[in-house]
Amino acid sequence: MAKPSIPQGTRDFSAEVVRKRNYIFSTIRSVFEIYGFEPLETPAMENLETLIGKYGEEGDKLMYKILNNGISNPKNIEKSKVGFEKVLRGKSSSELTERALKYDLTIPFARYVAMNHGVLTFPYRRYQIQPVWRGDNPQKGRYREFTQCDADVVGSTSLLNEVELACIYHEVFTKLKITGYELKVNSRKILTALAEVCAEETKVVEITTAIDKLDKVGIDRVKEELKSKELNDDQVGIIESYLTMNHATDTVIGNADKLLFLKSFFSDSIVGQQGIKELEFLINNLPPAVNIVIDQTLARGLNYYTGIIFEAKAPAEIKMGSIGGGGRYDDLTGLFGVPNIPGVGISFGVDRIFDVMTELNVFPDEVHTGTRVLFFNMGEAESRFAFGKMQQLREQGISCELYHETAKIAKQFNYAEKKKIAYAVIIGSKEMEQKYCLVKNLATGLQEVVVFENLANFFSNT
Amino acid sequence: MAKPSIPQGTRDFSAEVVRKRNYIFSTIRSVFEIYGFEPLETPAMENLETLIGKYGEEGDKLMYKILNNGISNPKNIEKSKVGFEKVLRGKSSSELTERALKYDLTIPFARYVAMNHGVLTFPYRRYQIQPVWRGDNPQKGRYREFTQCDADVVGSTSLLNEVELACIYHEVFTKLKITGYELKVNSRKILTALAEVCAEETKVVEITTAIDKLDKVGIDRVKEELKSKELNDDQVGIIESYLTMNHATDTVIGNADKLLFLKSFFSDSIVGQQGIKELEFLINNLPPAVNIVIDQTLARGLNYYTGIIFEAKAPAEIKMGSIGGGGRYDDLTGLFGVPNIPGVGISFGVDRIFDVMTELNVFPDEVHTGTRVLFFNMGEAESRFAFGKMQQLREQGISCELYHETAKIAKQFNYAEKKKIAYAVIIGSKEMEQKYCLVKNLATGLQEVVVFENLANFFSNT
Repeated sequence: MAKPSIPQGTRDFSAEVVRKRNYIFSTIRSVFEIYGFEPLETPAMENLETLIGKYGEEGDKLMYKILNNGISNPKNIEKSKVGFEKVLRGKSSSELTERALKYDLTIPFARYVAMNHGVLTFPYRRYQIQPVWRGDNPQKGRYREFTQCDADVVGSTSLLNEVELACIYHEVFTKLKITGYELKVNSRKILTALAEVCAEETKVVEITTAIDKLDKVGIDRVKEELKSKELNDDQVGIIESYLTMNHATDTVIGNADKLLFLKSFFSDSIVGQQGIKELEFLINNLPPAVNIVIDQTLARGLNYYTGIIFEAKAPAEIKMGSIGGGGRYDDLTGLFGVPNIPGVGISFGVDRIFDVMTELNVFPDEVHTGTRVLFFNMGEAESRFAFGKMQQLREQGISCELYHETAKIAKQFNYAEKKKIAYAVIIGSKEMEQKYCLVKNLATGLQEVVVFENLANFFSNT
Repeated sequence: MAKPSIPQGTRDFSAEVVRKRNYIFSTIRSVFEIYGFEPLETPAMENLETLIGKYGEEGDKLMYKILNNGISNPKNIEKSKVGFEKVLRGKSSSELTERALKYDLTIPFARYVAMNHGVLTFPYRRYQIQPVWRGDNPQKGRYREFTQCDADVVGSTSLLNEVELACIYHEVFTKLKITGYELKVNSRKILTALAEVCAEETKVVEITTAIDKLDKVGIDRVKEELKSKELNDDQVGIIESYLTMNHATDTVIGNADKLLFLKSFFSDSIVGQQGIKELEFLINNLPPAVNIVIDQTLARGLNYYTGIIFEAKAPAEIKMGSIGGGGRYDDLTGLFGVPNIPGVGISFGVDRIFDVMTELNVFPDEVHTGTRVLFFNMGEAESRFAFGKMQQLREQGISCELYHETAKIAKQFNYAEKKKIAYAVIIGSKEMEQKYCLVKNLATGLQEVVVFENLANFFSNT
């Protein structure tokens, strides 16, 4: 028999990991709720036609498609064959597969809003914490099944939403003790203005795509890519001076200086001025504690963003990169036939946040729950008696176990130790008779005599 | 454009439903934890070879298999074709699909234990609350994506585990206010003894399968099925007298009478006597509050059970049937090459419990959380000011929103009403100046003047 295994890029989560992940989820959830967001959950499977073509060619390739059931059923075989041929030619085919696992939370959310826009109250503030699946090559911090954590406000163009979402980043990271985070911000309007200043309005996508790689490949490769897209030296020069803000790249300047630079750089661009005004509104309305940094080089890939964009970075001492991102979009549901629903959203990269918190060692001790009290099993009558005492503690919300069988004391201690149980309660025949028990603190080794009626109190107070 | 839709048998969960479901999950989870069970999560996808053949022919058919990525990649095409031909012949094929969505939580749990048995502490008490997928025909209470909620103890043959699991059923249903539940219990050992008494030891599966249908089809059809399996009239007569306990079927008799009947019926069967002794131990060791009922007709389908079996029934006034089930098995991980790990487990049918609680109307009011306070947006300066006040309430854990734009009062009231927000806070220019705000209770219509410094207190105390 082959040794059992799990699919590459997926993970089992043991008790300790589940508890730490739940701590992150519940922290994020509580902040979302305090900000008036409400939960939504959508199925793991979506109809393939809902997802296909929404994430570019790469997305279509990496999406997990589900084989239709019953393809070997005699009445389906001819249909299945036609479908298989289509799939072999790289097309999608409902004859072979009509469902896929969700690839992100945004498209299913858009599908939900399009289906329910008549009954939703707008602005609709929803959050969603669910797994998604991508057939990417697994590597450090990248999994084939991972959890996304999104909050979006749709049906509102107000910049107050951007202000609140930036506050949410700050509150979540502060609560999780990731205090050295940095929240980068830019505006797609400014990138549009940059194309305008280069007199290449039609090449805004090419320019954005090239800039998006700056972090990974450096300025020279970005310039090469821009040239390969037929931008001339003058244009590339403009983009370079924008990216470096005419400073040596390692000069740190503040948001106010950056805004001054941008205002002068885009003095003739209406869309540029608008983007700058929006950034100013955001920065002026944020509590000073929020560590927001204008980063004119931020592009956020090839997304559907149209206004302010965000990216949250892990503290610099940890090589992790982005732990969250988001931005404003003009049209969430147009793809599904319902136009004019603008919105703005953010996402938390939970798997990376987990790694960052592990490295920073900031999970609180209280995360480690589990059994607090082990009742030793000292024989048939004794264990029956101990069971009753244990049930009284459980009624008080104290997590307990009774060792499952009568066994040597050493074996029972060993079990308690392996499971990091805090206390052992020993009730032998003598103790039964005299109505007390021995309580041993397994960390300190201290042993106390506790009379039965004080037992629940003893654990409530420790 | 086709109207967007979701796959048949799957559901979107809106805020209210998510909150109610979470209430059920967290109630069950807290009871599991108090009983010393620890969480485990396994991936949605398993390797197909882990799942295939574990659920019978029906299971293999209803399992959702995932198409391999890259089957149209030139270097994979020949392989894909071979795989497709295999699948068409009803075989499984790693060339076309090497992963599937999990079908239950037990087999992935067994796979996990087999992979990690060297590092786990036994008895290992784990619980798992996760979705599973089955391509069944959707119908009332049956979905293609649904959540299972399991607790198992493995590595122990002690009947104390059965006692604890029965207590867990009682505590969960009591906490959920499903007080009219009934916990049926029987033993596979008694069903084995029944085959023995019929002198048909080899037909224990056929007999169990027939009995399992009693509830749905009635005694006459069960007798027909037994005859079709070549049991003679005498044998069928024995089984009938077992099923009816020699009583008219509508006579209600207690557990003690049933035990007496079984003891005499199986007086010559060692395995029967053992099964009865185990039921007696369970019943004698349970707190009297647990509504446990011996049901000699309980069979629990074609599962791997070998000892005591459980089935939890919804209160009789609700036509829902089973809301949970479980039992003891001899060998969890033998299928994965690790023998001798016995265990016992139970499961809660969360989707049905949800329906039962809806029908009984027992969800507590506190489940309806959501935004408590809406700050009205009375202009640019006013809203900026209100934002600051709102952030102070949020710091106290009070969920608030600021209406996203300046709008007519009526529109803002309308938004609050639709979202069932409890309070409106109005801060206009006059209020800003005089340092108070108007707080309106939207349920009663009562309006109060609250000075700024008392605002957080006002909501903490209401």
